[in-house]
Amino acid sequence: MRWVTWTADGDVRAGLLEGEEIVDLGHRPVVDWLAAGAAPDTMGRARVPLGDVKLLAPVPEPGKILGIGLNYAAHAAESTSFASLAGEGVQKWFNKQVTAANGPDDPVILPAVSDQLDYEAELVVVIGREGRHVPAERALEIVAGVACGSDYSVRDWQKASPTMIMGKGFDTHAPFGPAIVTLDEMGSLDALALRGYVNGELRQEGHTGQMIHAIPDQIAHLTAAFTLRPGDVIFTGTPAGVGAGFDPPKYLAPGDRFRVEIDGVGAMENEIVAETRRTRIGP
Amino acid sequence: MRWVTWTADGDVRAGLLEGEEIVDLGHRPVVDWLAAGAAPDTMGRARVPLGDVKLLAPVPEPGKILGIGLNYAAHAAESTSFASLAGEGVQKWFNKQVTAANGPDDPVILPAVSDQLDYEAELVVVIGREGRHVPAERALEIVAGVACGSDYSVRDWQKASPTMIMGKGFDTHAPFGPAIVTLDEMGSLDALALRGYVNGELRQEGHTGQMIHAIPDQIAHLTAAFTLRPGDVIFTGTPAGVGAGFDPPKYLAPGDRFRVEIDGVGAMENEIVAETRRTRIGP
Repeated sequence: MRWVTWTADGDVRAGLLEGEEIVDLGHRPVVDWLAAGAAPDTMGRARVPLGDVKLLAPVPEPGKILGIGLNYAAHAAESTSFASLAGEGVQKWFNKQVTAANGPDDPVILPAVSDQLDYEAELVVVIGREGRHVPAERALEIVAGVACGSDYSVRDWQKASPTMIMGKGFDTHAPFGPAIVTLDEMGSLDALALRGYVNGELRQEGHTGQMIHAIPDQIAHLTAAFTLRPGDVIFTGTPAGVGAGFDPPKYLAPGDRFRVEIDGVGAMENEIVAETRRTRIGP
Repeated sequence: MRWVTWTADGDVRAGLLEGEEIVDLGHRPVVDWLAAGAAPDTMGRARVPLGDVKLLAPVPEPGKILGIGLNYAAHAAESTSFASLAGEGVQKWFNKQVTAANGPDDPVILPAVSDQLDYEAELVVVIGREGRHVPAERALEIVAGVACGSDYSVRDWQKASPTMIMGKGFDTHAPFGPAIVTLDEMGSLDALALRGYVNGELRQEGHTGQMIHAIPDQIAHLTAAFTLRPGDVIFTGTPAGVGAGFDPPKYLAPGDRFRVEIDGVGAMENEIVAETRRTRIGP
């Protein structure tokens, strides 16, 4: 199954993507379907052409968004600014703020406060069952499925503090989608090819078998410390080829489009737009 | 006003703490009252003795929990393990996981995976209005009020990665309360005395005027990158005297009680209990 959250006329609905159509599942949020482990009966439900709707992040309001740093060796090697992070054997985790969640077709802001916006194509894991102290060999039991994601990073803000989180959590900087593809449809997650393109130019190419810390080990480590819940989202690391790895760096500019493709999962493409800085207080 | 979330018989309710009584505000969550900027009419509402109920975290499900590191000079000086963080002028932010939220009287777990559990007495700020690009001089407009908090930290896990978050986000490690004291009741936040006690022994003593980065500057910095929302929670830093600052370190053991007192805000005391490690999958 391919779970989506979609809207037409502002009404947010769950659905299943089947080819170029969405099966309308109504107002029950995708995360509730995932948590219930339910496979909806699609017979007799309305279908809507994909082209007629706007897709949101499949989980529009994640409980947590976690990301792992330097999880592909070639990317770790190009990330010379973060050399102090490159300890052997240690998983390097950060949060992306939940307010950074963004849809697969939505604009991504180039912040007013920086000109060092960078892309990172990643496989995203969405949690479907609560888990604590989950051993690696059972980790996939709590995974609902996977999606394409880009871990947008504001490099100067990221470098300013070793904790990194200020540069990882800007609004709009955690787009994922277009759908959550369930594990039964994916088969193994161990060798999925992923690619990142800027304006059609191939910049990143790798496969999930190159991860230093595989997804089950990530989940075992995280849940040794805290509970993962349905709707939590994990960015599992990016292969080499980010903008900061070039000399001079190739950061993103307004109008650029960054595309993530993952075999068996789909593709997602976001356009960069310049932020208009404006104080906003209150609803 | 002093906003509380409380329960008797498992029914979670909002309330206002008045002396030793709680004015029952029913099922509307505290965060909704805060976001509405409402001052409830307390006339004719039921009152319950504080001693008859259990207090939960005043916002049981924060959207984000953020914490600032090394924000009191004397604490920065004692934190020799984190010397690389001590850059001048830079705010060092981390997330505590939202699943770490915990009540003011609740047990705090000494994790099975570590014997380096430490305390950090802190003033906690709770956001009441949404804000983005909020300048320091307007920052308090988005603050609903303050509470006592302890930023429990698992030092070996914190040190393992410079991003620190794995050691900051263990389940139960972000207790705060007992109430959210509104700013009109607090007056200035600039010189509040705060103290931390382990089993009645004074370990931490400071005041908010010693912060390197004052609360308005914290909010201005955070909202330059992302949106703060009602129910987001900020741990604003701890004064000197944490367990890791002693030689040898004075980490917490099962049965220890850590008490936080802040003048004008109240007090909170949590007992440390050993974790029983058990795999938990599913609801």
